Amino acid sequence: MPTVGKLVLDPIETNQGEKGFYSKFSHENETAKAGYYKVDLEDYNIKAELTATERVGFHQYTFPKSSDAHILLDLVYNVYHHENKNVWTFLRVENDSTVTGYRQTKGWARTKKVFFAIKFSKAFKSYGHQKYDKQTYNGFYGRFNEKENFPEMAGKDIRAYFNFDTEAGEKIQMKFALSPVSSAGAMKNLEAEVPHWDFEKTKRETRQKWNKELSKIEVETIEESQKETFYTALYHTMLSPIIYEDVDGKYRGLDQNIHESKGFTNYTIFSLWDTYRALHPLFNVIQQERNNDMIKSMLAHQEESVHNMLPIWSHYANENWCMIGYHATSVIADAVVKNVGDFDQKQALKASVETANVSYFDGLGEYIKYKYVPDDKSHSSVSKTLELAYDDWTIAQIAKSVGDAKAEKTFLERSEYYNNVFNPVNGYMSPKLSNGKFRKNFNALDTHGQGFIEGNAWNYGLYVPHQLDKMVKMMGGKERFSQHLDSLFTMELDDKYIAKHEDITRDGIIGNYVHGNEPGHHIPYLYNWTGKEYKTQARVRMIMDTMYGPGVEGLCGNDDAGQMSAWYIFSSLGFYPVTPGSDRYALGSPNVKNAILNLENGNTLEIQTINQSMKNVYVKSFKINGKTIERNYILHSEIMNGGTFVFEMSSKHQ
Amino acid sequence: MPTVGKLVLDPIETNQGEKGFYSKFSHENETAKAGYYKVDLEDYNIKAELTATERVGFHQYTFPKSSDAHILLDLVYNVYHHENKNVWTFLRVENDSTVTGYRQTKGWARTKKVFFAIKFSKAFKSYGHQKYDKQTYNGFYGRFNEKENFPEMAGKDIRAYFNFDTEAGEKIQMKFALSPVSSAGAMKNLEAEVPHWDFEKTKRETRQKWNKELSKIEVETIEESQKETFYTALYHTMLSPIIYEDVDGKYRGLDQNIHESKGFTNYTIFSLWDTYRALHPLFNVIQQERNNDMIKSMLAHQEESVHNMLPIWSHYANENWCMIGYHATSVIADAVVKNVGDFDQKQALKASVETANVSYFDGLGEYIKYKYVPDDKSHSSVSKTLELAYDDWTIAQIAKSVGDAKAEKTFLERSEYYNNVFNPVNGYMSPKLSNGKFRKNFNALDTHGQGFIEGNAWNYGLYVPHQLDKMVKMMGGKERFSQHLDSLFTMELDDKYIAKHEDITRDGIIGNYVHGNEPGHHIPYLYNWTGKEYKTQARVRMIMDTMYGPGVEGLCGNDDAGQMSAWYIFSSLGFYPVTPGSDRYALGSPNVKNAILNLENGNTLEIQTINQSMKNVYVKSFKINGKTIERNYILHSEIMNGGTFVFEMSSKHQ
Repeated sequence: MPTVGKLVLDPIETNQGEKGFYSKFSHENETAKAGYYKVDLEDYNIKAELTATERVGFHQYTFPKSSDAHILLDLVYNVYHHENKNVWTFLRVENDSTVTGYRQTKGWARTKKVFFAIKFSKAFKSYGHQKYDKQTYNGFYGRFNEKENFPEMAGKDIRAYFNFDTEAGEKIQMKFALSPVSSAGAMKNLEAEVPHWDFEKTKRETRQKWNKELSKIEVETIEESQKETFYTALYHTMLSPIIYEDVDGKYRGLDQNIHESKGFTNYTIFSLWDTYRALHPLFNVIQQERNNDMIKSMLAHQEESVHNMLPIWSHYANENWCMIGYHATSVIADAVVKNVGDFDQKQALKASVETANVSYFDGLGEYIKYKYVPDDKSHSSVSKTLELAYDDWTIAQIAKSVGDAKAEKTFLERSEYYNNVFNPVNGYMSPKLSNGKFRKNFNALDTHGQGFIEGNAWNYGLYVPHQLDKMVKMMGGKERFSQHLDSLFTMELDDKYIAKHEDITRDGIIGNYVHGNEPGHHIPYLYNWTGKEYKTQARVRMIMDTMYGPGVEGLCGNDDAGQMSAWYIFSSLGFYPVTPGSDRYALGSPNVKNAILNLENGNTLEIQTINQSMKNVYVKSFKINGKTIERNYILHSEIMNGGTFVFEMSSKHQ
Repeated sequence: MPTVGKLVLDPIETNQGEKGFYSKFSHENETAKAGYYKVDLEDYNIKAELTATERVGFHQYTFPKSSDAHILLDLVYNVYHHENKNVWTFLRVENDSTVTGYRQTKGWARTKKVFFAIKFSKAFKSYGHQKYDKQTYNGFYGRFNEKENFPEMAGKDIRAYFNFDTEAGEKIQMKFALSPVSSAGAMKNLEAEVPHWDFEKTKRETRQKWNKELSKIEVETIEESQKETFYTALYHTMLSPIIYEDVDGKYRGLDQNIHESKGFTNYTIFSLWDTYRALHPLFNVIQQERNNDMIKSMLAHQEESVHNMLPIWSHYANENWCMIGYHATSVIADAVVKNVGDFDQKQALKASVETANVSYFDGLGEYIKYKYVPDDKSHSSVSKTLELAYDDWTIAQIAKSVGDAKAEKTFLERSEYYNNVFNPVNGYMSPKLSNGKFRKNFNALDTHGQGFIEGNAWNYGLYVPHQLDKMVKMMGGKERFSQHLDSLFTMELDDKYIAKHEDITRDGIIGNYVHGNEPGHHIPYLYNWTGKEYKTQARVRMIMDTMYGPGVEGLCGNDDAGQMSAWYIFSSLGFYPVTPGSDRYALGSPNVKNAILNLENGNTLEIQTINQSMKNVYVKSFKINGKTIERNYILHSEIMNGGTFVFEMSSKHQ
């Protein structure tokens, strides 16, 4: 944070009641683009500009004339700051314009270390720090001043400052490199990625990189705002997973030792309960190379894991176990089935099978023993049973590709376990006890303690993506299931049934359908399994219109590492991967006028519409390369071969 | 800690008032030798045996028959436990008999990380841990059991346990390897140093290593207990500094990055304010190769130091700044003058000069500016002035050897600054203010706030080891100075003048002389500069007799990383390095009957006595290779050339 005037190290208010080091700013004087951010900090008359390369942030601060200019390095603050997550901070002022160090935190990633190296374009005239934790450093005995111009700082909570004299309009630049390995690694990254002080050059090159990626899909939309929504969503799909290695391929593994990626780029931030649904399938269309690297990263993770498990929710050399299932197997199966990447499929099968047999993992031992997760043995028992059954089906797909008939059979059997939690008496997927009886006191509308996690039996209970025809039949057949869906979208859900959870808010709810969270993202497409495709078409257009937008409240829930946005990209283009791990996409209703997919294999897919408008949400006909398609799904090969899709739209359904 | 019976993880007492996991033991059933320790843990009927290699501890526990045997890994406890020094702990159960991890603490070393790898000779049947810090790990949501048989543990305060079934007399062994780098490094150390499970073999080899080192000096003593005291002291001199690198030469540097030692073995634990006096000089006689490695380690430290400083008190990749001065220069100069090692003397001079010019270091800027440390500018001003002046003299010795006349002149000038704190009015080294006047309200007996640290003007004020003749003259000449020494040893010092400090206790005090702490260790030898050598002879024999012994209270103060014991070794042999950085040793009075020094250069020095007894403390004559030596000192070359020293002893002084 750049400031001028009296040095203030408190963010909000000082002990003397003076203002903290924040600044007013106006959105009118703010610019936010892919790879560039600018804002005027009005309290200090400082223009702040930011750009970045993969591993280096490049800051440019334009100061007023001041003999009291500062740049603050606040290593106290972090997200969910009240949780007091700092573990240790270490800082060295290497010379008058270079600072290195690291911070360790215990948050979402339990043992997280982020190393850094900073270079300033101008030498600071002086510097210092304030430490907020108890002084525990024995050696000094207070014999000399550790707080000012002393180049070594360490402790739990540290804010450092660097002082400058500035002329009016003088720019001070900072290059801020990160590393998962060491501060030496961060310095290597800094020198490799930004060896110069040309801010405009980095800004330009970064813009070119973004343009290259964002140009993989070129759309024309009905309304201009839809274009903004589309590219905002596409941008969101590229924010994570992130590269997690130094320029030399070194990274910190789950065992906290330093590893080296060989033949791939290592990634982290795998929010897999979210992203296996549509984000990784989207990568299999437009980011195959990166998805291949991500799968190789997951296989490396499995090798480093003391549990021999693929990532559940991995983050900075940690497994945080967030949410349920082991959906990395779905990501792998989707790539296997779609022939994406050159990862070792046998190793992938081995890793998946080992993952699926860790008895102490979250209900898994009971699932294997009872053929469902008993509600008296494990929390969220129905959700787990449904998701594990699906994941096991994806492992069977990998086994099939590898030619391991035995594993295929085993996991196909396990993929049927969802049957064991369906209660024909009430017609819902329901919590079952270890004695084989369904639980009494069960409320299919409630999201609390009914065997589901972040959902209820009405919505989450429709989760059998790998055997949807069977599920629809089981739940009373097409007509009855279609009515269930109608009710789901139109019923009034009492507030008391809505989980008190940041992932689920009124903004993301339509009736009892929750678009603001992930487990129901396939549901709007399920009308395709009832013979009422037009209802899917109307519903997905309605969701795109009402739950996504270009403004500050553009999303109806957490983006959840790109999944919410990936849903939009697919749906905008007119199809959606209801069953990752199969090569099919359910057809929906595109909201673009036209789209061109510039595929990595060199092919081009043009998606065209006839009679497209905001009201014409129904698909009258669909043609691939001029040939009418009667089925309500398309194949992955039909996308990747390129050519032309033509949707003829209408205001009335057939 | 091995235990049997109900699992107890509290060290002293459980919440239910039950006994903690400690055990009674008897010294009668205890064996402690160099490289081997054995004790019977009576509460559990377990025999515990320990041996070690350089980097690996080898444990052997003999259990009774039990279906409830445990080995506890207590990572909560540390020295000065009440200071709550744990920062972070990380543990992985790699398989049923291998555990890896690390602990980070913030104690004497501010950012200390110790990595480890443990192998058990027998698979544990189950395991678990208790965590005493607030649960901050978000991901679990309590969905599965992290405490038992879950192979990944992390947090601030952790105690882990490993459970076994044991037969009567069954031995369970553990190899426990350390690393400053990583748990992978620890595993490498473990495999390299103890690739087998033969406890007796390691015990035997370790005993051989110790015997080799302890045989460098073979003594016959007057009384048997003196022999025990001598070898206990010699053992103490080898406990630190310690090797601080993995078997592959990798170590953690001051910048927390991983470095590699090239052409040397890296050491840490440099308690230099203590050890430059006699420990490193002793190494220059019997451990030249190790001392060379230590100096190279100090030069590497200086290169890694963000202050460009040689170590003051370095410990596990940290500088803890304990005590004053920069005595690494003395260690280097002593090696330079004595022609020890092959380190780069020019680099050593550069490192010393840079160290001696860090203006923000503990009074150093003021020392350079005022030519003394002003008492109103910096704490312990007189002690600092005296020690810095001496250290600067040692830098001049290095400069002389390198042939840098300019540096030699500069530092010889600075070595005279002690003159500036001598007050001819009171005859004491006294605190002087920045206005050039001596401070009023000065008490030469008090150890509190009188410009000295852990001493007073009466004792610490005699610290000009490089210009003792001048100092004696300045303080009134030989007769008067001799009387000062007499008074020092015989006066009664009131308790109120004794610093409340663990380093200074009544046990280590003779009059106003403090042998239990370091700054006066040269004082008993100062009679040699007054023409009354016999008083030195009597005094050092008296100190050896009364302040050292073989029992549990064998030392009169902290051993301080070997300095207290090194004083004994030299004094026992009849000489002492009053001025490290010169090639002279003051002659004293040996308390051995005979000694043989088996020198690393292949020469042998025999020290013989005639008429030696407890009462015959006076040296009647001293001969080197048959030639009578009239001077009261010997030269380093006279030791290293080997030959024979003969002390003729007497009960009466000349």
